[in-house]
Amino acid sequence: MKSVIGTNITLSLYGESHGAAIGAVVDGLPAGIKIDTDFISSQLDKRRPKGKISTQRREGDEFVITSGVFNGFSTGTPVHIMIENKTQRSGDYQPQLPRPGHADYAAHIKYGGFEDWRGGGHFSGRLTAPVVAAGAVAISILAGKGISIGTHIKKCQHIEDRSFENYAEDIALCNTEYFATLDKNAGTAMQQHIESIGADGDSVGGVLETCVLGLPAGVGEPYFNSIESVLSQWLFSIGGVKGVEFGLGFGFADCPGSEVNDAFEVKGGKVVTKTNHNGGINGGISNGMPVIFRVAVKPTPSIFKEQDTVNLETMENAKLSLKGRHDPAIFHRARVVVDSMTALALLDLLVRRYGERWLTE
Amino acid sequence: MKSVIGTNITLSLYGESHGAAIGAVVDGLPAGIKIDTDFISSQLDKRRPKGKISTQRREGDEFVITSGVFNGFSTGTPVHIMIENKTQRSGDYQPQLPRPGHADYAAHIKYGGFEDWRGGGHFSGRLTAPVVAAGAVAISILAGKGISIGTHIKKCQHIEDRSFENYAEDIALCNTEYFATLDKNAGTAMQQHIESIGADGDSVGGVLETCVLGLPAGVGEPYFNSIESVLSQWLFSIGGVKGVEFGLGFGFADCPGSEVNDAFEVKGGKVVTKTNHNGGINGGISNGMPVIFRVAVKPTPSIFKEQDTVNLETMENAKLSLKGRHDPAIFHRARVVVDSMTALALLDLLVRRYGERWLTE
Amino acid sequence: MKSVIGTNITLSLYGESHGAAIGAVVDGLPAGIKIDTDFISSQLDKRRPKGKISTQRREGDEFVITSGVFNGFSTGTPVHIMIENKTQRSGDYQPQLPRPGHADYAAHIKYGGFEDWRGGGHFSGRLTAPVVAAGAVAISILAGKGISIGTHIKKCQHIEDRSFENYAEDIALCNTEYFATLDKNAGTAMQQHIESIGADGDSVGGVLETCVLGLPAGVGEPYFNSIESVLSQWLFSIGGVKGVEFGLGFGFADCPGSEVNDAFEVKGGKVVTKTNHNGGINGGISNGMPVIFRVAVKPTPSIFKEQDTVNLETMENAKLSLKGRHDPAIFHRARVVVDSMTALALLDLLVRRYGERWLTE
Amino acid sequence: MKSVIGTNITLSLYGESHGAAIGAVVDGLPAGIKIDTDFISSQLDKRRPKGKISTQRREGDEFVITSGVFNGFSTGTPVHIMIENKTQRSGDYQPQLPRPGHADYAAHIKYGGFEDWRGGGHFSGRLTAPVVAAGAVAISILAGKGISIGTHIKKCQHIEDRSFENYAEDIALCNTEYFATLDKNAGTAMQQHIESIGADGDSVGGVLETCVLGLPAGVGEPYFNSIESVLSQWLFSIGGVKGVEFGLGFGFADCPGSEVNDAFEVKGGKVVTKTNHNGGINGGISNGMPVIFRVAVKPTPSIFKEQDTVNLETMENAKLSLKGRHDPAIFHRARVVVDSMTALALLDLLVRRYGERWLTE
Repeated sequence: MKSVIGTNITLSLYGESHGAAIGAVVDGLPAGIKIDTDFISSQLDKRRPKGKISTQRREGDEFVITSGVFNGFSTGTPVHIMIENKTQRSGDYQPQLPRPGHADYAAHIKYGGFEDWRGGGHFSGRLTAPVVAAGAVAISILAGKGISIGTHIKKCQHIEDRSFENYAEDIALCNTEYFATLDKNAGTAMQQHIESIGADGDSVGGVLETCVLGLPAGVGEPYFNSIESVLSQWLFSIGGVKGVEFGLGFGFADCPGSEVNDAFEVKGGKVVTKTNHNGGINGGISNGMPVIFRVAVKPTPSIFKEQDTVNLETMENAKLSLKGRHDPAIFHRARVVVDSMTALALLDLLVRRYGERWLTE
Repeated sequence: MKSVIGTNITLSLYGESHGAAIGAVVDGLPAGIKIDTDFISSQLDKRRPKGKISTQRREGDEFVITSGVFNGFSTGTPVHIMIENKTQRSGDYQPQLPRPGHADYAAHIKYGGFEDWRGGGHFSGRLTAPVVAAGAVAISILAGKGISIGTHIKKCQHIEDRSFENYAEDIALCNTEYFATLDKNAGTAMQQHIESIGADGDSVGGVLETCVLGLPAGVGEPYFNSIESVLSQWLFSIGGVKGVEFGLGFGFADCPGSEVNDAFEVKGGKVVTKTNHNGGINGGISNGMPVIFRVAVKPTPSIFKEQDTVNLETMENAKLSLKGRHDPAIFHRARVVVDSMTALALLDLLVRRYGERWLTE
Repeated sequence: MKSVIGTNITLSLYGESHGAAIGAVVDGLPAGIKIDTDFISSQLDKRRPKGKISTQRREGDEFVITSGVFNGFSTGTPVHIMIENKTQRSGDYQPQLPRPGHADYAAHIKYGGFEDWRGGGHFSGRLTAPVVAAGAVAISILAGKGISIGTHIKKCQHIEDRSFENYAEDIALCNTEYFATLDKNAGTAMQQHIESIGADGDSVGGVLETCVLGLPAGVGEPYFNSIESVLSQWLFSIGGVKGVEFGLGFGFADCPGSEVNDAFEVKGGKVVTKTNHNGGINGGISNGMPVIFRVAVKPTPSIFKEQDTVNLETMENAKLSLKGRHDPAIFHRARVVVDSMTALALLDLLVRRYGERWLTE
Repeated sequence: MKSVIGTNITLSLYGESHGAAIGAVVDGLPAGIKIDTDFISSQLDKRRPKGKISTQRREGDEFVITSGVFNGFSTGTPVHIMIENKTQRSGDYQPQLPRPGHADYAAHIKYGGFEDWRGGGHFSGRLTAPVVAAGAVAISILAGKGISIGTHIKKCQHIEDRSFENYAEDIALCNTEYFATLDKNAGTAMQQHIESIGADGDSVGGVLETCVLGLPAGVGEPYFNSIESVLSQWLFSIGGVKGVEFGLGFGFADCPGSEVNDAFEVKGGKVVTKTNHNGGINGGISNGMPVIFRVAVKPTPSIFKEQDTVNLETMENAKLSLKGRHDPAIFHRARVVVDSMTALALLDLLVRRYGERWLTE
């Protein structure tokens, strides 16, 4: 399986940046789910470049759902979501000069020169748009079962946001802001920093932090389909994601076990953990606490500074100066992609446990 | 697919810590591979607890290969590797008191009390033994194609090892030492620290760093089967792994794009990158540079300090004092598990590209 | 995996008869395959209703390939083929009266009334059109490796066609005729019979026979991915197919082993079998002889005679008289669907054996 | 995926006829299922050769369950069932002379001579024993949900058994007899015929017919995971199965649509079909009627008559006279394998629909 992911909920992705269309087929969604196209649009809007900190390429992202929805409800058969490409300016690309940090060179070797090199082709970040549309449906379904997801910008170079404290409120905050930080000042500082980096023709990366609230205990499988294994397969498929950690993550290396084991206690008749260093997951399976993870997003590889590359035709060293429309940062736009991938991944694990019918019960 | 992973190379895992046996079925291995049982034994030996820094439980780990090998060579049909459990002391466990940091509670909810709770049951680290045996075969196959893998202990609390420098030499070093660090002094300091932590009844986590040398460019798939997606699915299935990062990983958030883009140059007639911040992977596909990643391993949850827990029968708060045989650290033993998972994961991606016949050509 | 099939070559199918569009995403096709849109059109033409023996619904079947093809060649990334629906007349259907022999009732129970009931919705035979388009690409690839496929109408009620004799010539014959029989007289008799049955408002089924020539020995896997297991999964996904048999198939029950064992002999320095009762497959694996199988297609369930049904709203018995445009037979149009499914299935097995790169070597 | 089948219920198969052991790993079974080892033994007993019509090789088939069962109940984690091989007489085989009708030659080409050729190696019918053991658990689970399965011998050359009439009674009959026919006289005649064929050193094939009673409507998926597609993938993995047909199957080619459409009616407040020509399946999905299918089993390829073959070492024509222990017929022993594969396949589809928890509710 190459461009397909999932067991009970499957996502099949296609398209290229400058081709006729991009899209996704999502299967396994139960019948009878109300499809809220306004919500899908609003999710796509969060992925769209906006303001001074984003590319000036303005994408329409007008989606059509050609299949799997009838009279406003899901039919239970595959949902096909398509977005036509309209603002293609492929004159900006020189295929013989692979862009550092992009997939150009690796794809050239893999596909022997037959790859669609315009704007990164199949590797373009544009392909996350249909994922967001599909994810919006998954988010709605989870919401109907009391499960909510929120992602904020935890870090941008030296500027750090606070972590989740009041889970429900903080998630709500994540889902109302375009450039979502939990500490407003941190957000302002980050945006100013991105603007200044962008003015210099450079780019910047960041860390996103996600909280899933309401996931029942007992979801996920041991080993290869642990929540960590499944979520990371989805999350690393987002272009630019180079790290994923759960709970304390790499911070576990700094602490003795006695401080991070998450002791149990009975609270309100329910078993909870006093701390949540494990991010709601033990042995790959949810323990009923909020699921917490972080994703590292590298700086946009498209920068306006001159870079060293090679000319693949002459096999000589060369200089590359990018033109066109590029973002100095993409992590704030990747937030909604993380939410979408997370919702689809968890929905798959939930269906394994409760069956397709549970979802609409 | 629950306990099964892989597309062209599949691994199916079974067993419990105190059951009759643990084992794995590996399929997709090409016919005609010489099966070096001494090498398998030596790999299992690296996973075994040793010295003062490990549990005093001494496991035999004597494996049998019941199938898929004939006259010393792989037959091309499923290889079944089994390890009988011999030194079970299940009297040490109290199922009604879930151990903090372990899968006990999550498994109890998931399986409704029917789980084998002795020693963590199916969730026990013992199940990595058959993975190591299977991985040894994969490592041999890759070695025959010029691909080598090495993992060292990058960090244990405040003590850090140096990173890979001379790749081939450093990988060789990793594969000769039991407690492998690239800087001998760091290794000594870490072992002393673990010993002291262990004497205190506590435990400690760490960070492992892996290098894969010789992987050809063009391996991996865009999106869901990117090298990052595939490797992370395998790596997060190792108990205690809570973070995975490639190249700079979370460090990408600290740097501008201009510093981390890995410019290309022609060297000896070949295209290489001047730096390797992306860890040999662009767009999910290998670019021919060494693949570098790090894995965060949490402290062993089994500690000898008294911990708070709940009594699942009475639903009251309770105290738990563990007895038995436990490691103050497991990351040094997890090294060979990481190598094994990595070899199996990459073999799967290589077969997708070159076919099963390439492996023995 | 619901609407997705295949391991190395995957097909993801979507759409409904009266929705906006139907389509397929095919992934795993190697880069650098010349995409012959004329051949795709000519294959779609074979699936189209024609002449007096077919429905008067005239479908355009104009396909667009939105992705995965660049400058006329496959890029190696997912190919998306879409066909817009244009001639929808949904006024012809009464959803509360499930049509006997159709999926209407089973779908109603499965999807709880949310199914798109217009024209059979997702279950419509129209969804085979994108499969044929995808299959055309697979057929081209196989042809480039010396593998050819042909299907003729073996039987229609009492009228029988002869079996394959001169494989290469007979396959060529199958691929030039719209209503392909190997014996011209049988074909004429069948068409007259279908016309007469259709005039009576009734329908008729048949048996198709397929030959694959040039498949190398050693393809297929033991057990669950035997050629028979894989092909039958694809073939039974064609609506109306209710039987699949390989070689002598059900005829094996009539013969002693001594007559049907396919003795080996050396011929021209190669090992061949003297007979081919096993249809080119032993133990699930190709033996180098032509692969022969037959597929039973039931009569079109849409007939113009009044039928008994139930009213799902009132839960009372009811009468149903179909109007609209229906075929008295569809097996002759299913021929090219069988060829397409076969080509995709075998391509998947071939890639497992030889890798994606073999295909364009 | 090679030796693995299933989505939510997976079966992983390993072993060779004369290797140390054969076995299966079954995952996805819910926790809390009582494991009835006596029933497993009695099912294995039905697969065992018995009486004059079977090989004189007497197999112990003593199984052990090493994992996934605790205190007599399934744990919810992988169940490993193993059968050690004890009565191996590999001196009977000559690997350079491939046996006609067996996998020997195809396997030799596929695995390049590294295959375990003793007794057919991995292709041996012995591997169905662990499938039967696994299937016994699935049959128990289905029985707990009111779903029963029975298979009788429909045909052996010219001798035919009657078809299912009183479903529940007939299924009970199938499950009490070793050589199960619905008409006792047909069974006696078949056994005499097999005995006489066997005395002549020859072998004979047959047709099995299966009924599944109690499967709720709405199970199965359109297209690639239709009940027909899924069941046939499982059934064709049984060695010697060369045909599968549902309902009327190939008989559909003989009838007009008006006679075989299965009109609906309301009966006892429920929707049923007046006839069941479609074998309980419409559009790939169960309609609530009994599921009926037939499987063609070819004659045992091992016969005692001299056969033509080739010498793979000298590449010259050769004569082969088999010695050893062989069955003149295997279809009566394949009955329980069909039941087992059917139970596992349907359980997988049921879990997709109702979730793992439904099974024990």
